[in-house]
Formats: sequence, structure tokens, C-alpha cells
Amino acid sequence: MQTIRAGVIGTGFMGKAHSLAYGAVAAIFADVPRPLLVTLCDVDPANLDARARAFGFEKFTTDWREAVADPSIDAVSITTWNRTHRDIAIAALSAGKHVWCEKPMGLTLQDAEDMADAARRSGRVALLGYNYIRNPVLGLARRLVAEGAIGTVFDFRGQIDEDYMADPDAPWTWRMRRDEAGLGVLGDLMCHLVSAALLLVGPVAQVCAQLHTVHRTRRLPAPPHGAAEVDTDDHAHALVRFAGGATGSMVASRIAHGRKNLLRLELHGSKGMIVFDQERLNELELYVADGAADTRGFRRILSAPEHPPYGAFCPAPGHQLGFNDLKVIEAAHFLRCIAGREQPFVGFEDGLLIERTIHGMAASAAAGSWAAIA
Amino acid sequence: MQTIRAGVIGTGFMGKAHSLAYGAVAAIFADVPRPLLVTLCDVDPANLDARARAFGFEKFTTDWREAVADPSIDAVSITTWNRTHRDIAIAALSAGKHVWCEKPMGLTLQDAEDMADAARRSGRVALLGYNYIRNPVLGLARRLVAEGAIGTVFDFRGQIDEDYMADPDAPWTWRMRRDEAGLGVLGDLMCHLVSAALLLVGPVAQVCAQLHTVHRTRRLPAPPHGAAEVDTDDHAHALVRFAGGATGSMVASRIAHGRKNLLRLELHGSKGMIVFDQERLNELELYVADGAADTRGFRRILSAPEHPPYGAFCPAPGHQLGFNDLKVIEAAHFLRCIAGREQPFVGFEDGLLIERTIHGMAASAAAGSWAAIA
Amino acid sequence: MQTIRAGVIGTGFMGKAHSLAYGAVAAIFADVPRPLLVTLCDVDPANLDARARAFGFEKFTTDWREAVADPSIDAVSITTWNRTHRDIAIAALSAGKHVWCEKPMGLTLQDAEDMADAARRSGRVALLGYNYIRNPVLGLARRLVAEGAIGTVFDFRGQIDEDYMADPDAPWTWRMRRDEAGLGVLGDLMCHLVSAALLLVGPVAQVCAQLHTVHRTRRLPAPPHGAAEVDTDDHAHALVRFAGGATGSMVASRIAHGRKNLLRLELHGSKGMIVFDQERLNELELYVADGAADTRGFRRILSAPEHPPYGAFCPAPGHQLGFNDLKVIEAAHFLRCIAGREQPFVGFEDGLLIERTIHGMAASAAAGSWAAIA
Amino acid sequence: MQTIRAGVIGTGFMGKAHSLAYGAVAAIFADVPRPLLVTLCDVDPANLDARARAFGFEKFTTDWREAVADPSIDAVSITTWNRTHRDIAIAALSAGKHVWCEKPMGLTLQDAEDMADAARRSGRVALLGYNYIRNPVLGLARRLVAEGAIGTVFDFRGQIDEDYMADPDAPWTWRMRRDEAGLGVLGDLMCHLVSAALLLVGPVAQVCAQLHTVHRTRRLPAPPHGAAEVDTDDHAHALVRFAGGATGSMVASRIAHGRKNLLRLELHGSKGMIVFDQERLNELELYVADGAADTRGFRRILSAPEHPPYGAFCPAPGHQLGFNDLKVIEAAHFLRCIAGREQPFVGFEDGLLIERTIHGMAASAAAGSWAAIA
Repeated sequence: MQTIRAGVIGTGFMGKAHSLAYGAVAAIFADVPRPLLVTLCDVDPANLDARARAFGFEKFTTDWREAVADPSIDAVSITTWNRTHRDIAIAALSAGKHVWCEKPMGLTLQDAEDMADAARRSGRVALLGYNYIRNPVLGLARRLVAEGAIGTVFDFRGQIDEDYMADPDAPWTWRMRRDEAGLGVLGDLMCHLVSAALLLVGPVAQVCAQLHTVHRTRRLPAPPHGAAEVDTDDHAHALVRFAGGATGSMVASRIAHGRKNLLRLELHGSKGMIVFDQERLNELELYVADGAADTRGFRRILSAPEHPPYGAFCPAPGHQLGFNDLKVIEAAHFLRCIAGREQPFVGFEDGLLIERTIHGMAASAAAGSWAAIA
Repeated sequence: MQTIRAGVIGTGFMGKAHSLAYGAVAAIFADVPRPLLVTLCDVDPANLDARARAFGFEKFTTDWREAVADPSIDAVSITTWNRTHRDIAIAALSAGKHVWCEKPMGLTLQDAEDMADAARRSGRVALLGYNYIRNPVLGLARRLVAEGAIGTVFDFRGQIDEDYMADPDAPWTWRMRRDEAGLGVLGDLMCHLVSAALLLVGPVAQVCAQLHTVHRTRRLPAPPHGAAEVDTDDHAHALVRFAGGATGSMVASRIAHGRKNLLRLELHGSKGMIVFDQERLNELELYVADGAADTRGFRRILSAPEHPPYGAFCPAPGHQLGFNDLKVIEAAHFLRCIAGREQPFVGFEDGLLIERTIHGMAASAAAGSWAAIA
Repeated sequence: MQTIRAGVIGTGFMGKAHSLAYGAVAAIFADVPRPLLVTLCDVDPANLDARARAFGFEKFTTDWREAVADPSIDAVSITTWNRTHRDIAIAALSAGKHVWCEKPMGLTLQDAEDMADAARRSGRVALLGYNYIRNPVLGLARRLVAEGAIGTVFDFRGQIDEDYMADPDAPWTWRMRRDEAGLGVLGDLMCHLVSAALLLVGPVAQVCAQLHTVHRTRRLPAPPHGAAEVDTDDHAHALVRFAGGATGSMVASRIAHGRKNLLRLELHGSKGMIVFDQERLNELELYVADGAADTRGFRRILSAPEHPPYGAFCPAPGHQLGFNDLKVIEAAHFLRCIAGREQPFVGFEDGLLIERTIHGMAASAAAGSWAAIA
Repeated sequence: MQTIRAGVIGTGFMGKAHSLAYGAVAAIFADVPRPLLVTLCDVDPANLDARARAFGFEKFTTDWREAVADPSIDAVSITTWNRTHRDIAIAALSAGKHVWCEKPMGLTLQDAEDMADAARRSGRVALLGYNYIRNPVLGLARRLVAEGAIGTVFDFRGQIDEDYMADPDAPWTWRMRRDEAGLGVLGDLMCHLVSAALLLVGPVAQVCAQLHTVHRTRRLPAPPHGAAEVDTDDHAHALVRFAGGATGSMVASRIAHGRKNLLRLELHGSKGMIVFDQERLNELELYVADGAADTRGFRRILSAPEHPPYGAFCPAPGHQLGFNDLKVIEAAHFLRCIAGREQPFVGFEDGLLIERTIHGMAASAAAGSWAAIA
């Protein structure tokens, strides 16, 4: 595997996470060469030099077009606002860069189609930042399903809840406007749930959803203050049917008081059940209907070296991975995809499926009826 | 309050529970006189005398019509098969008896209409056995909602799951046939969830459901053996909208491996959240978005004398009530309703709302569209 | 089995629980005839007639000596203050009654010796009210240990905590004085923990304890008010060694804020572990080190008909027993012991072992050294 | 703050963790300059060059004396076997290096005394790798205690359990021999518990312990195979008294089946309680006896930006830190200590207190009596 020269666009929550991941990936994974951190890019020049130095980059720029065109870069991380993903991703792919782009793909379904199209044409690796599915215990879940440990999965229950907008007095942000954020909770959170369902059950074929904007105005944090309208959804409920025949429901909220990072899954199978709750990131619950009836029960499995790639982080079981570690796993996957040793998942093609699902939910809710996912 | 003379029809799971409840109610609740246990009735004469003696009844019979006509009886408990509820309840009410009938009301919505009609005409107390809502911690939940502790409740999430039919090899029972059981999991479990929603959020106005019969045949437990068809639903998902404006989803399954008595509720409010999980019957989780931000969290409240009528059972907090205790609370409510001191809930009128909701779910699923609840 | 004629002395928390248990036992357990409730006794005459009626007793008295001497009574429940247990129990046994006495046995170790002696001489059933060990999931634990499911048990960890005296401003009660209560938390709570250890691991041979009275004075609730001294222990820690070779530790507190009925056990075995937490009365956690390494974990087993005698209360798993149900199980055991069909456990002889253990803890703490349990 | 030039001795579990921490610390913490990774050292030359490159070091060596003497290095991480800590640490301090050494200090109490002495004489920063106490929720616990949120802490309950030697057939390792490992579970795990107690309650003044080696021989993994003796302790129980007056108990096991990283604490205070369980690293439970009695309960607080330095890793609450993140926090502390901006904790002086406590436990167990900690 050759050394990859990376650029990171954006220095916020996700820009930092990508940079940390590039920095740690080779120390964690023996098979991955240490990437070269070439350029850090942010529109905001304040302290950008210091941040570049702290993150370990050689240089920095405030112009993403410069970063994307830079011949000394092989791969670009896109961690900026949703509304910028489309243009940067397409430009980077067109410039022959491999792309690791944060979710969601863009504001509209057309954005996503365009991006998938660009990826297809480029022949480059185009990966999306659905890092929650990198969790070793979800890998275990997937393997258990594949091995038939819980029989045929006939039902999926999912919810994903946070409370970052739960306070009615929380200020208006760009996420409140459709033309800045695309969808609301569907694009911010529900897509994660759909990515987990895609991993574990497969693609969704039909949806029937209801959306709700509970807080229809929000105060403006800056002059002229006053209230601004909110036209993105606060929470969403959907019935789903999977292409493979399973049924399910998916619920998401950004106004769920007390929930900080809940992503709760239940896989109902003909022989058992798997439950996962992301606020307890390092645990998987498994019930299998076998053995003596008097000692059956859900067992709490703690993340351990038996659940790859946990052991690359820590040889001792139960010592726990954190959020940023999931991003390191994703970075390794990105680098292995570039080396042709793994197939990207969630690639832009898969991401398009996810976008079709969440936009299908929005369409279904608007129409008040079931909608098919193309 | 005068002494009530009671008859119990049925000696199974619920017949025993009603009998125990009548026997304990006066010792638990100082304001309720000890009911006289007059007649125990079951179609099966085997050991009926012994059971009557053990339960504390004066006499017994195998003919429910005799019990219902008995002038020495004021009140009748109906705990027999679903398909018998309608006729016994109407006969009892017509004979001037107060009625405490197990859920669901009958096989069809028409049954429920007829029963509510009979109750209305009789002027007698007609109560349904939705005992889960008697739980003191749900009483606390209701009071917290009423007092605004979690602000406006805008979303309800509910699931109710058991696994009594989860084994694909579990034998065929009368619950598998619509003409014996009415609905499947909707009538057996979902109605409980709807009763809890009715208590905590109010009546449902619109539903959109999908039903699924995963195991479409079941082996016959008796000759000629072989496989019999199943035409009742194994699990159900529904989107709901409440008359008061809140949204929600409700899910139910009788084939959820590992779930024994799950009834999980989330009440999402503008100021906080309440969560309940019936497999931990004596706990309520409450999150309120106030106080110092660094010590906010869901608090696990243990059932205690502060949550009436827990203290009538036990003066010490956290010592825990059980399933049969909930039935004693229901018995006390029944007796107080007869004395005119409380209004029946879930009375037959409320029960009709519940039946309309679950039958509406069935209709919605059949039509593949939203349905209004009359 | 013949009908037992019972008297209950005391009408408080435990008097009510015994009365309820006698009332329900025959309906729950088909093999136990319904006991005749003869006499209810309390020193306080207020409403005693109403209570007797409500509880289902034929008559009542304020004189325990009368109850104990009554030839129409076969069995006596003793549920009064600790300081009265000794005299009532000895008088009842001497009068040829079977005795079901609440724990602890008396105030001093000599009381317990005298009571065990009286029981031995009487040839009657002498049972103590250690109802926590009646829990079906502890029965499962015992069976699993006996069957070797967790191998050799080499270590026991126990804690029992409540917070009824946690408030520094909680008023002085008789439990604060050694000459009224005997020991403090050792006699009130620790003895329960020792009873569970006796069931699951066997008798304790050596102890080394420290006791602490954190709140050394308490306000008097009645005139002349002011502060009264506390000479009973608020909390206790003990190292233990069992006669069978296992080690362990036991901790108890009556001032543990937030704990309402915690009795937490860990049985460490050479092949697995069992954990129990009484605030979740219907659950047992089991870890067995077998099967695939990647799916090992503690499994949460819910109380079910597979765990006798749960099924006598409820045919459906996970529907949960409560505190008062445990007392019904104890009542059935008492009646079966009278019929010669079971051997009393915790009988007065076993109870004496428990008293020696807790008094040994007190002696060890006073001496600052290990103490042998005779 | 100036750039620190670091060397890491050892490339196992902890060597990797230190290296990762140095690599990430500047990206995480804006106030800390990126350290220069100079030398990676391991006695095993296999792949050492590749590891050095992957970890980001400039050079490598198999000779710790060379690393320690290297004038281009300011600070040395010591992550090798326990038996080597003493010599390397003293050599490094003598060479004027700052030292960050894994726990425990050495094999004997004399080792620890010598090391503390060397640190004192050197005037350099000498920090021990007690990373569990870096957990932001333990920082919250400490602050809550300091602010009096739970009143006076009068009792501490601690247990630390793993199962790495639980399998009776697990092979013999150097940890089984006192002359290689020093103490057994006391040195490997109990010292972590003591470090947490030191943080939260203060130093221990008296102990009374019992130790147990359950599996007295272990099979040799290599020729000549056969069984080798074990002379280090498998599990330990101790009663403790703190210098400040609080009491407590501490329990540790390396043979606790099912426990992977349990470090469970209870802080009992006069106004409330704090509970922590390290297998749920990102949670703290808090009970405060105030507010309405009917809604009191333990609240589960999820790690969040309100609990520094969580926010440096992730701006979103509940997204969870992992084991390696705690090491990054420790690295930042080490670098700030070198810059004179923080005081080392657990420094060698504090570490000596911990060693005295665990060696005091060993002495107490041998003597069968209480022992004072000097």
C-alpha cells in the first residue's frame, strides 16, 4: 500500500475528527501506511496556521478550490456545510482525487444523483462518513445475522434521537432552513439510521412517513433578532418495507429531551433478537432462543478483541472505544479502498440509496401516503 | 360503602387474578369493604369445587347464565375467551349486574359497539381489565404530564412485545384464527398500548398501519396434526396522530424473541421526557431540562409510597409491586365505581375508543392508507 | 393437608403482609388448603375490629398472651417489635403453636439462643420471615450453583442498602437504641444478606467488620424534642470467610441515599458468575464462560414459570412478582412444613447461625480483629 | 509552551497508547503544542522500524539506556514490564528527563520509595499512568464532592474486576510470580481503585485485607509444559479507613468471569450518592436528596462538553470517549506539568501513597489484622 497524501476541507467537529483519524490510522492498523497530511482548508483564516500545525498538516489554505486542484494531494476529506458537499465533491472527483465526504450527500436528491454520477465517471473512491456503522459491535451484529444466529430477520425497529434543538428557546441556525440544510432531522439523523438498516437488513423499498416541525419559529441569535421561520422537520416517524421482505419502523428526532446520541436498533429474527443502543456504544444485546429455557435472556456483550477491529485499538476487552475511534476505522477503510483492497461502503452509490429513502420519506409525508423507493 | 357480592366467570390466568384481587382488596385498601365471593364459574367442572374453595367462593357453577342471573350477585367478572365476552357482558348488564370484563371487548368492532350500548342502557358500572394502566408509576407519569413537568407532550412512542408465539414451531391455538380471537396481536397486545396512550395523551384520531403474519401456518397440537392456517397478525406497526395534535408510533409483536412483557413508552415533551418499560414494572424514567446542565440526566424513579396507591401495599419504597397487585388496584377502582366514588376508566365507552383504534389499524393496513378513527 | 387455624400478632407492615399471605396462599398454590384466619392481635385497639374484618379474621384481641394461648389456633405469626419476638415466640412454642416469626430473632444473641432452644424442645415448626430468599430467581441461582453451572463458588460479594435513615434530620426512632432494637443495620438489613449467603454459599465461619454510626444524635420527634443519642450502627462493612472455604465481603447501610431496597449479590464461580439486584426483583444475571467467545455476556433472565413457584402466580413470563408475593411463597412453605412436607428454612436453628454471624460482626468491630463464628 | 521531544519505551498495549496520545494531543487540545516523537524503543527488534514509522517516530532503538541518555529527548514514557520500571525511571530522571511511567511503580515498596526519591531529587515531572482517573465523569464526580453536592462523603465502596485469569486453564504468565510482577491483583488492578479513592476521598490510613489465590498452579504455555506455581493473589477484599474519617471497602479480582473492565465506585454522602461503573465509561449516576420526593431517583448523566475536557474531543454530548482518549488527556496533563502549568497527579509522591496502601493490604492479609498506612 502506498502512502496517501491527504487534504482536509473544514476544521470543525468533523474536520478535526478526519484529521485525528488520518493521524492515528497507521499506529492503530499495522496494514495501513501513515498518510501524509498535506493541506488543511477552512474559509475562516483565524488560527488556521496554528490548527494546521496542531493537526500535523504541512500547509493550509482558505480556498477549497486550491486544495482540490493541488497535484500533491491524492485524497480529500469534505467536512464542510451540507450545502457545499456537492460542488466540492464533484470538483475533487473531477480532479482525480479520492473523496471521503461527510453525510448527508447534499441538499437535494438531485445533488446526490449528481455526486453519484461524478463518482461513477471518475473511477475514484467516493466514501461517505457514516461512521456509526464502523462500530465493532455492529460488525458483530451483521455477522450474527449473516450466520443465521437469529434466523430470518423479519422486522427492524429503529430510532435515532438527539436533543440539540429540544429547547424551544434554542436559537435559529442554518439547519432550520431547507435551502441551507436540505432536509431537517431526516438529513441530519435519520440517514444514519437508514445506513445502519442498509448494513444489517438491506435497502428499503417502501416508506410511509409523517414529519413534524414542533417549533415553527426560532429566535434569531443575531440582530435584528426576532423570530425566524423553521421549515425543516423536527421529528419524523416512518413505516418501512425492505426490498428483502422485512418490515420495520424508523423514528428520528432532534428535539428529544435527554437523548444525546441515541441510535437504537432492534433486529427481530425467527430465532432470536439483537438490540443495540448507541448511547452504550460498546455493548450489543443478543437473545437466542436456544439452550435451557430457564436461563434464556438477553445477554450484554461488551466490545472486545473478538469483534474486529476492536483489538487494533486495545488488546483488553471492555476497555471501550469512543466516537473518534470509529472515524479511525473509517479512515482505514478509505485507505484500503484506495488501495483496492476493500469496496467502499457507504460509497456514493449506497449513499444515493439512503438519500432516496429519506427524500422518499419526505415525499410520503407530504402526500400522506406510502411511497416507493426507486 | 356496602359489601359487594361478586361472581367470577372463568378460572384461568385472569379468573385467578380477579379472585385473588377480590380477596385482597379490603386488606390493602382501608376504604373498601371486603367483597363477598359468591360464585365461581367455569365450563370445565374438573376440580371446580376445589378451586372455588381455595379461592374463597361460597359456591360454583359450570353455567355462566346461572351466575349472571343469580340475584345474590351484584357484580360479575368476565375472564373467559374473547369470543364469549360480548354475550356474557350484555347478559350480565341486562340482569343489572356491574361488570368487570377482561380486554379486548369482543371479536369485532360491532361486538364492542353492542357492549358499550348495553352498558349505556344498563346504568351499571362496566369496567374493562386494562390493568397495566393501574401501575402507580404510570399514575405518576400522568400527574407529571398534567402538571406540565415535561411541558407539552408532542410525541408518543410505544411498543409492546411478547414472544409467546415467537417459536416457529409453537402450536396453533385459537388466537391464530380471526373468528375465535378477532384480531391477533392488535387485540391481544396493541390494545394495552392504546389504553396507556389514552391515559397519558388522549384519544387517537388517525392511524396508518402495516400488519404482518410472519408464520402463516402453525402445526396443530392435536390430531389430525398437520399445519393449520393463521389469519391473525403476528406483529403490527402504526403511525398515529392524536386528537389533541400529538404524533406518535405504536408497535406490537407476539413473536418478539426475548420479550416477555415489554410495554415501552416514551412521552416526548417540550420540557422533558418520560420513559417507561414494563419489564421493569416499578421504575419510571424522567428527564427534565432544568437545573445545572452538567448534572442533567434521566432519573430512575423507583415506585414508592409517594406514588399512590403503592403505599397501601407496602410502606417501604422500592419493595416492588407485581402483576397481581395491579389487579387489586383495579378491583378497588371497580368497587369504588360501584359506590359512585370514582368514574370507570377504562369503562366500556373508553374501551370502544380503543377498539375503534385497533380495528382502524387493521382497516388502514388492509387499505394501505391512513384511516380516521371515528 | 389439614386446614391450619392462624393468628397474627401485629398489624403493621409485616402483620398486613402475613395476613394477605394467609388469604392468598390457597388460591395461588393448589396443594395448600386455605388457612382459617382466627385472630388478629395488636396492642393498639384503634380500628382493630375493622382491620380484622378487612383482613378476614374471625376475631381480634389486644393481648398477645390471649392469642398465643387460644386453643382454636394452630399457628402464630409474630410481626411485632424486635424486642417482643423472644417472649411471644417462646410462649407460643410452649403453648404448642407453630411459629412464623419476623426477623431478627431478638435483641441479643442470648434471645436467639433461647428461642432456638424453645423451638427445639417444642417440636413445632419455627420459621423466620426471611422472605427475600423466597424469590424464584434466587431459587434459580441456588439450583444453578448446585448443578455446577458456574463451577465452584469461591467468592461472595453482597451489599444491602436502604436510605430510611439517610436524612440527617430524620427523627429518632426505637431503632436508634440498642436496648430497643438490638443491633442497628446489622439486625435490620445485614441479617437478610447473611440469609441469602446461607442459602447460596453456606454458613459463615469468620468475620472481620467495621461499624459506623455516622449520625450520632437524632432529633426527638416528640416533646421534649432536642437531640437523642444513637447507639446503633448506621452502616457496616465485613470481610467474611465461609465454612466451605469461599471468601467474601458484606456491606450494609441504612443511610445510603437513593437505595430503597438494594440487596446486591455476586457469586463468583470458577466457570461463571451470578449477579442479583433486588431493586430489580424479577431479574437474575448469569454469565457462563462457554460457547463462542464473541457472544459471551451477562444474560438478564426474567422471572418466569420456569422458575418455580413463579408459575403459581402467573402463567406468563416476565409479568413480575412483588414484595407481598414473596410472603405468600413463605406462607406456603410454613404450611407445608406444618404438614411435614418440607423442612423449615430459615428455621430458628438456621436463624441462630445468622444471629451468630451478625453479632460476631459486632464483636469483631468492637475488638478490631477477626472473629470466629461458633 | 515549548515543543517537547518525546521517547517511548515499550511498544505493547501501553506503548501504543502513549504514542497515539502524543500524536493526538495537540489536535485535541489547542493549548498544547504538538510533541516531537523522537525515539521508539523496544527490546524486540522485529518490525521495530515499521512500528516507529507507523507511530510517527523519527528513530528507534532496542536499548532503553540509549533512549534515556539521548540529549535530543526531553521526556520519556515507560511502558515496559513492571520489573523494569524502577531502573528505567531512575535512570531517566537522573538523566534529567521528565518521566511518564505506567503503574504500578515497581515490584516492591522499596522500588517505589527509590523512584519517589529519584523524582524528588531530580526536580523533573514524574507522572504515573493512572489514566482511569482522567475520565471526565470522574472529574465531574470530584467537583460535585468538592462543591458539597452530596454532602460529607462518609463511605466509599469500590470494586475492580476483570477476568483475564478467570479461566482455570489460562496459561501461566509472568504476572503469576511475585518476583516478576510484585503483587498480583493488588498491583495490577487494586492500585487503580486506590487511585480513584485518592482522587475522590483522599489517602487511606488503615486497611484490613484478605487475599486469595484460587488457582494455585497454572499450566506452562511452553516446554516443559506441566504446571507452575502461582504465588500472586487472584482476588482481594479490604476494609479501609481514610485519613479524613470516611470508611470503606475495596475489592479486586482478576478471575471475575464476565467482568472486562469493571471499576465500580459508590460515594455515600450525607446528602446524596454518586455511582460510577467503568464498563459504562461515559456515564455517572447521581442521586441528590432534594426536590419533590416523588421524582427523586438516580440520574444517569452522559459525558458531555459540560464535563471538561470532553468537549475538546467532541462538541456533541453523549458521543462517547474511549480508553485511548483517557490517555490523551493524561498526555496533555503531562505536557502541562512540564510547562509548569499543572501539578502532577498521580505523581510519584502520590503513587508512593498508593503503593503503601496496596502493600499494606498485602501485609494486613498476611498478618490477619488491621494495618496502618504510614
